[in-house]
Amino acid sequence: VNEILSGYGTTIFEVTSALALKHNSINLGQGFPDVDGPEEIRQIAADALMTGPNQYPPLMGLPELRQAVARHNKRFYDLDVDWQTEVMVTAGATEALCDCFMGLLNPGDEVVLIEPLYDSYLPIIRHIGAIPKLVRVEPPHWELPREELEKAFSDKTKLLVLNSPMNPSGKVFTKDELSFLAALVEKHDAYVVCDEVYEHLVFDDHQHHPLMTLPGMRDRCARIGSAGKTFSLTGWKIGYITASPHLMKAIAKAHQFVTFTVVPNLQKAIAAGLDFPDDYYRDFTAGMQAQRDLLATGLRDVGFNVLDSQGTYFLTVDFSPFGFDGDDAEFCRYITLKAGVTAVPTGAFYQEGGPRNFVRFCFCKQPSLLNEAIDRLRKFF
Amino acid sequence: VNEILSGYGTTIFEVTSALALKHNSINLGQGFPDVDGPEEIRQIAADALMTGPNQYPPLMGLPELRQAVARHNKRFYDLDVDWQTEVMVTAGATEALCDCFMGLLNPGDEVVLIEPLYDSYLPIIRHIGAIPKLVRVEPPHWELPREELEKAFSDKTKLLVLNSPMNPSGKVFTKDELSFLAALVEKHDAYVVCDEVYEHLVFDDHQHHPLMTLPGMRDRCARIGSAGKTFSLTGWKIGYITASPHLMKAIAKAHQFVTFTVVPNLQKAIAAGLDFPDDYYRDFTAGMQAQRDLLATGLRDVGFNVLDSQGTYFLTVDFSPFGFDGDDAEFCRYITLKAGVTAVPTGAFYQEGGPRNFVRFCFCKQPSLLNEAIDRLRKFF
Ligand SMILES: CSCCC(=O)C(=O)O
Ligand SMILES: CSCCC(=O)C(=O)O
Repeated sequence: VNEILSGYGTTIFEVTSALALKHNSINLGQGFPDVDGPEEIRQIAADALMTGPNQYPPLMGLPELRQAVARHNKRFYDLDVDWQTEVMVTAGATEALCDCFMGLLNPGDEVVLIEPLYDSYLPIIRHIGAIPKLVRVEPPHWELPREELEKAFSDKTKLLVLNSPMNPSGKVFTKDELSFLAALVEKHDAYVVCDEVYEHLVFDDHQHHPLMTLPGMRDRCARIGSAGKTFSLTGWKIGYITASPHLMKAIAKAHQFVTFTVVPNLQKAIAAGLDFPDDYYRDFTAGMQAQRDLLATGLRDVGFNVLDSQGTYFLTVDFSPFGFDGDDAEFCRYITLKAGVTAVPTGAFYQEGGPRNFVRFCFCKQPSLLNEAIDRLRKFF
Repeated sequence: VNEILSGYGTTIFEVTSALALKHNSINLGQGFPDVDGPEEIRQIAADALMTGPNQYPPLMGLPELRQAVARHNKRFYDLDVDWQTEVMVTAGATEALCDCFMGLLNPGDEVVLIEPLYDSYLPIIRHIGAIPKLVRVEPPHWELPREELEKAFSDKTKLLVLNSPMNPSGKVFTKDELSFLAALVEKHDAYVVCDEVYEHLVFDDHQHHPLMTLPGMRDRCARIGSAGKTFSLTGWKIGYITASPHLMKAIAKAHQFVTFTVVPNLQKAIAAGLDFPDDYYRDFTAGMQAQRDLLATGLRDVGFNVLDSQGTYFLTVDFSPFGFDGDDAEFCRYITLKAGVTAVPTGAFYQEGGPRNFVRFCFCKQPSLLNEAIDRLRKFF
């Protein structure tokens, strides 16, 4: 069997959720909301199942969803996009990432990635025979290591992978950081896979800038969005890629042989969702920010050292104030079994030698559940 | 961009459908029914969208669908399967194929395939750096080339890919042919990816035997089924793999990084569909067989030399009686433009040097549409 993939365990998110379920623990591990997204979107999808058609849509996606993605790019980022040649729908952001890697990389190509990182990146890149060059940001400040980044780029660099807002750190890359990265990308004539699934979960005064909007970057980036994250429907597995025709052509070649196409009724419903008025997006962000604040305050109160979260579903905390005698994976197991609250070890997002006293909690849950989790932790510690 | 994938054009099915649409031609090219599958299944899916949850299901699939797939294996093939370790749900059979290839192959592994073949096999296998060894069956009799098969296997053979019932030939492999293949597989200690998406479309007295049911094959096969084909819901992109735990573990490693998981409400609905009484399956097959007969008779009447179709959605015809001065791709274009009926060239299913006077027509369409297609062809020729 494949030597690269068989070296990887089951994804940490699945393992964590299974453990939480087994121990009847509150699952603040795997990132998914406990309230499903807008009924209006689900109703459109349900109606379309009954009226049909339920047959193969075009491989690039339903025109109405691709048009909506193009309008979304314009509305939020003033990005002009041709829906026919520059937008494609995928089976979630995970497939979008896989398509980008498979479509853009050749064996031997180098890929610059910034740890902590989402766990599908490395296995797929290695499977292709491409070579990851890892640099890292670290808690508590997640500062961009500019010198290491300069060293990581070479004349073999084909791709940079950039996840902003960043999972699990909650870091939202600043315009200055993005400009620094853009200069490196341009200098080395590379492309960028921009994992922007949390684009609508940016808090306080922070602002999300797609790298694609920076000078020189328009035709070098494949920008990935996620309906699952944007509409709290993670099970729907609807993602979308925006990229210049040259890149999209290559990425679509992968998509057509990886899944070929995506469920039409869900596409139709997400098209409607993307056109929701600004209110939807504002309320969605505000609600999630309030949940972040609730959880942050509670965890601080329990005694955790709570880091700043600028975006995403996630809060990182330092558990060293508890003097726990073990690493982050052990701490996660410990609080699941003893306190009935589940988190994900931050170290799992690093290939090796990552930080060992930080864990990630999700706040994409109802306030009542977050309060219950805080109560459980408070009682235990 | 990737050198292997960029060498492939857009899939013939997409190109054909686009051409048909453009010229307002009856599309008997790409294989999809023009009547959506059971309302009961669609209603379950629609209800589940509204009641939820709409969040990530387990990566292997919803337990109720995996259990239903296990029961289906038992009911139809007397195959005992552990739903927890031996069944996985995928984003259609296309993803299932991709997962099998990515999970089982290493660069340099040899893969034996039988042309004509479905167009996703080779690009993915080559992308991995594995080496296809092609043998072929040819119209009009699609006889298994036993000697060439023996030569195609070597001590580097990791996989055989077997598609039965076979697209586009409509060939259903006999037990004798399967035994021959099983012996080769065992001798060379290989695995088999069994693309059995048309398992419930087998006509007359022919019978589908999963290779997995043959002696020695139980733990060497990954058997792929398709809800899209079995329930006339090709857009749903729900497939399932049955394989022994050792193989499944490797295949699931690919799935978790390719798409991670599959839409839960559709899974729930398909679970109910798989448990439909035998009547459903009998009527489905009988209806499709009647459509096959209608189209075969009509095309014969028009003057085509119509080959036997033992299974699938497809009929192969020889157009040489018309003395057309061009190859199969040209003939398909010609009848789209001139007669308003669209087919797929059989040669497209061969890497090169395939037959040049055969095309494939779909009969998974309403009788009225098939009659209209026949009328158009009759008027033109
Ligand atoms: C694919 S499950 C992981 C969900 C997620 O994005 C996370 O928890 O980080
Ligand atoms: C993925 S589109 C192709 C549908 C099909 O199986 C065929 O037409 O052969």
